Amino acid sequence: MRKQLKLLREKMRERGVDVYLVFTSDYHGSEYVGDYFKVRQYVSGFTGSAGTLVVTQKEAGLWTDGRYFLQAERQLDGSGITLYKEREPRVPTIEEYLENTLEPGQVLGVDGRCVMADYGKCLEEITKKNNAKLVTNLDLGGEIWEDRPPLSRESVWPLPVEYAGETSKDKISRVREFLARKGADYFLLTSLEDIAWLLNMRGNDVESTPVVLSYLLLGRSEIIWYVEEACLCETVKKILLKEKISVRPYEAVYKDVAKLPESSCLYYDEAAVNSALVACIPDGVKCIKGVNPTFLFKAIKNPVEVENERKAHVKDGVAVTKFIFWLKTRVGKEKITEMSAAQHLIQLRKQQEHYVEESFEPIIAYKEHGAIVHYSATEDTDVELKPESFVLADTGGHYLEGTTDITRTIALGPLTREEKEMYTTVLRGHINLAAAQFLHGCTGQSLDALARTPLWEKGLDYNHGTGHGVGYLLSVHEGPNSFRYRPGKDGRSDCVFEEGMITSDEPGLYLEGKFGIRLENLLVCLKSMNNGKGNFFEFEPLTLVPFDRDAIVPELLTEKEKKWLNGYHKKVYETLSPHLKKEEAAWLKDAAGEIS
Amino acid sequence: MRKQLKLLREKMRERGVDVYLVFTSDYHGSEYVGDYFKVRQYVSGFTGSAGTLVVTQKEAGLWTDGRYFLQAERQLDGSGITLYKEREPRVPTIEEYLENTLEPGQVLGVDGRCVMADYGKCLEEITKKNNAKLVTNLDLGGEIWEDRPPLSRESVWPLPVEYAGETSKDKISRVREFLARKGADYFLLTSLEDIAWLLNMRGNDVESTPVVLSYLLLGRSEIIWYVEEACLCETVKKILLKEKISVRPYEAVYKDVAKLPESSCLYYDEAAVNSALVACIPDGVKCIKGVNPTFLFKAIKNPVEVENERKAHVKDGVAVTKFIFWLKTRVGKEKITEMSAAQHLIQLRKQQEHYVEESFEPIIAYKEHGAIVHYSATEDTDVELKPESFVLADTGGHYLEGTTDITRTIALGPLTREEKEMYTTVLRGHINLAAAQFLHGCTGQSLDALARTPLWEKGLDYNHGTGHGVGYLLSVHEGPNSFRYRPGKDGRSDCVFEEGMITSDEPGLYLEGKFGIRLENLLVCLKSMNNGKGNFFEFEPLTLVPFDRDAIVPELLTEKEKKWLNGYHKKVYETLSPHLKKEEAAWLKDAAGEIS
Repeated sequence: MRKQLKLLREKMRERGVDVYLVFTSDYHGSEYVGDYFKVRQYVSGFTGSAGTLVVTQKEAGLWTDGRYFLQAERQLDGSGITLYKEREPRVPTIEEYLENTLEPGQVLGVDGRCVMADYGKCLEEITKKNNAKLVTNLDLGGEIWEDRPPLSRESVWPLPVEYAGETSKDKISRVREFLARKGADYFLLTSLEDIAWLLNMRGNDVESTPVVLSYLLLGRSEIIWYVEEACLCETVKKILLKEKISVRPYEAVYKDVAKLPESSCLYYDEAAVNSALVACIPDGVKCIKGVNPTFLFKAIKNPVEVENERKAHVKDGVAVTKFIFWLKTRVGKEKITEMSAAQHLIQLRKQQEHYVEESFEPIIAYKEHGAIVHYSATEDTDVELKPESFVLADTGGHYLEGTTDITRTIALGPLTREEKEMYTTVLRGHINLAAAQFLHGCTGQSLDALARTPLWEKGLDYNHGTGHGVGYLLSVHEGPNSFRYRPGKDGRSDCVFEEGMITSDEPGLYLEGKFGIRLENLLVCLKSMNNGKGNFFEFEPLTLVPFDRDAIVPELLTEKEKKWLNGYHKKVYETLSPHLKKEEAAWLKDAAGEIS
Repeated sequence: MRKQLKLLREKMRERGVDVYLVFTSDYHGSEYVGDYFKVRQYVSGFTGSAGTLVVTQKEAGLWTDGRYFLQAERQLDGSGITLYKEREPRVPTIEEYLENTLEPGQVLGVDGRCVMADYGKCLEEITKKNNAKLVTNLDLGGEIWEDRPPLSRESVWPLPVEYAGETSKDKISRVREFLARKGADYFLLTSLEDIAWLLNMRGNDVESTPVVLSYLLLGRSEIIWYVEEACLCETVKKILLKEKISVRPYEAVYKDVAKLPESSCLYYDEAAVNSALVACIPDGVKCIKGVNPTFLFKAIKNPVEVENERKAHVKDGVAVTKFIFWLKTRVGKEKITEMSAAQHLIQLRKQQEHYVEESFEPIIAYKEHGAIVHYSATEDTDVELKPESFVLADTGGHYLEGTTDITRTIALGPLTREEKEMYTTVLRGHINLAAAQFLHGCTGQSLDALARTPLWEKGLDYNHGTGHGVGYLLSVHEGPNSFRYRPGKDGRSDCVFEEGMITSDEPGLYLEGKFGIRLENLLVCLKSMNNGKGNFFEFEPLTLVPFDRDAIVPELLTEKEKKWLNGYHKKVYETLSPHLKKEEAAWLKDAAGEIS
């Protein structure tokens, strides 16, 4: 049994806790978290990006989703922790497990800072129902963590308006107008990406997400940013002073929220502010709960951001095209593994101007590894690429001009008929969505089936969304825009498409033990026309990298699909070739040649 | 100025009412209503099926939607009533109008029986906000209506289980299981279609909808049906006795609800029970509000109903095919008008076994009339059909075996290239949706774009939903299933497709002043396969009538579309020809011939 689990159980006994939950989240509900927050990973040994650990004196269970079943099984082996596969038949949810487990008078313990308020309410209801007690000020995992890394306190840097496209002042005005309409005096904002967007500030406190660990309280006239002063250079301080943004220590927000004036009105998002912070709000404060206004504001990229994103994607296209050329010409001639290929691509991106960092951990998955949707090569799994079958490359970068996220599936040698047909089917789905013209009012749910129909008609599917929103030099996964066929929460995971929204278009096909295919471009939503029938919209592909002609069966494409593909490839060649070496450009000319 | 308006204003003065609202609804929120309930029509003179009249001493306004702008303009001319075109720019909603109009201390009057509880709450909030008062027991329109028709009291008749497919007893058990899960003691059901479905009873109290004017209160062991005993024959009484369903007078429900035991728990649907009835619920009763469970139950047709619907559609297909043959061969040779054609089709349907009545007022719209989406010919507008251009025929019937709803657009003579191209584009949309194979989890919103894409890519659209659910010998418009691209209310106007749901597929194109095209089949949702990728579903077209070869441009169809169309036409010919006269069958053989 895992040592950490024993230690945690000792702590639980000491503190009179019968059931303890360890979450993956930081205090801000971030998708990726800093090392300080990786308590669940420390206690359980499971390194996946999603999962919750439930510990009693008798049992320990880790709940995670389909992406991580294989990895979790391996990593939990011998730990004394049972894997609960979420959404599999007959597997209880955590809530069901708690309802069946918690006995009257028992104590359920959590660190309320790692639980968003809406889920905190749900835990409260369960404990109430079971006549048990919820205690929320317990960081027991942290207490047993001897060599816990410190909270990240990396330097803050300003994002100039030529990149952000709108001053922080103007953004704040928009938020204040929203609050005025709601009749709110205060706005408590704790999502790191939203704070970074609002203040035009960036940092380095979370892997792959250039945000600053901080909270923000916005009043009618004052703004307080709860951030460690040590992280602020003189330039940043000067900007904050000019914008009348006060600075207070990171932890001070809890005390300040507790001192909000009686009978004032506070707006906050229950799904984005943690339970412990919400518990600090005085009883006399009137709360209005709703989605953070910044959530939608930042999803709608302004014209400067869109134009910058085009520039970022030229640079990224150059790097990825060089990478594909290198792979295709060097595979079998020199030793290239999944991990070394990923490193090579990072080097190519680093050569581009204004490159900041990877936008997520690169996925380079050869052959059957490509069928594992969230595969990430480790030294144990790394394999050499050979001149046959597919390698799937899902990677992205942050530039000052924006964030990229691209997947190409690359033929490294001769392909089977099955591989080609599957590739062409996925490509048809990708094109059907990318080429759509549609009326204003459509959400991602209204459009998702366009990408899936070519697969569905063959009884095929991919078990993930078709696309997600993408931040501007923020998180590569951003809401509320997305493409999913199942109903989402309007305003959170599904919304009406507006001009300037950037969304990935990434259908795929995964044949276990054989290969995986995914083809991903980022699409920016633009107005196409209004002819009296309504406002029509269309997508412009930002990503500029050729699809693999070696994998396409032209006769399976419709005329419309061929036309789109040839137009896209023409643009790719014309845009990228001036930035390529002679032999790369010559290769691209052929790779992006017309398909008839 | 209209006399009725003057009389209403006098009544308002007498009773101290400053603003009075007249609704279109009956006491049950029905889409179509009996003559007794047509107060709004009586007072305003506007005969459309949707609209609300707002009257003050100075102003009178009628709010209606885009379907009725032209008709309302004509019918309100000289009445002293202003037309408010809903959803047009700068037109206030009724709620906005009330907020701007109601002065402190004023009285807003309504008949609370004609307002569903959720909207009643909304009116209450508006009056509260304006420091005005809401009075809900005023049927002023009824008071001035001298020759008001009596409440309909038509005979009730039972629908045997060979048609309904499930006994009333079993249906009631399912409802009781639902209530037990919710912890409810009572269920108040007042939607006429839901009551008819639950009891396997039909009536004739509402035009085109064979339902019985009644309320229902279901307890843990008792059921009370509030219906006039005079409407019940001995057979029905015997059935009710056997099923232990008590009968009480229609109006008695108000008193009985007021006597519900303190601290009992009542389940009801705020959007389906009227305000006046909800106002009767004693304070001590705990209310659980949610969608009527019967709403989803009745939308999922059981295997017997589906098999019956196939039979109904053979009969309906025979009638409509005979009609098209007659139109095509007789137009220009004898005088046929929109109205006489409609009568002819009704006669053809009446010749079919087990025909009950029309399922809605038939739309036969020639040439430019076809561009008016909800056109209904009157003696004023009726025109003769000529051997040119299109006639649009949207009609349907109720049979003991189910309900039909079909639209065909029929070429009466040579067509222009534009007419043919438009027809083919709409047909492509129709086929794209009808031919879809999709995963369980899709709602109508996920699939609607399939029908619109062929139009949207040309910058065309139709300003109505692609499809609606259809009842079984109940209302031809039934929720929650539908096809719409905009987000609907899950559980009310959008839902996950389940096996047995019947939905119309009716894309269209409307060129004002020229012609209109709409092509509608009813589709039943069926399982197609589960190959490990998930549960795939598909649609089977119930409707069996050929599309018009004379209007199709074959080269605009994809191979897949041609294949679907040829397969459909083959089935139409094989199924219908045995029931047709020799010359009709010969014509159909050609009309349903293969397109290459």
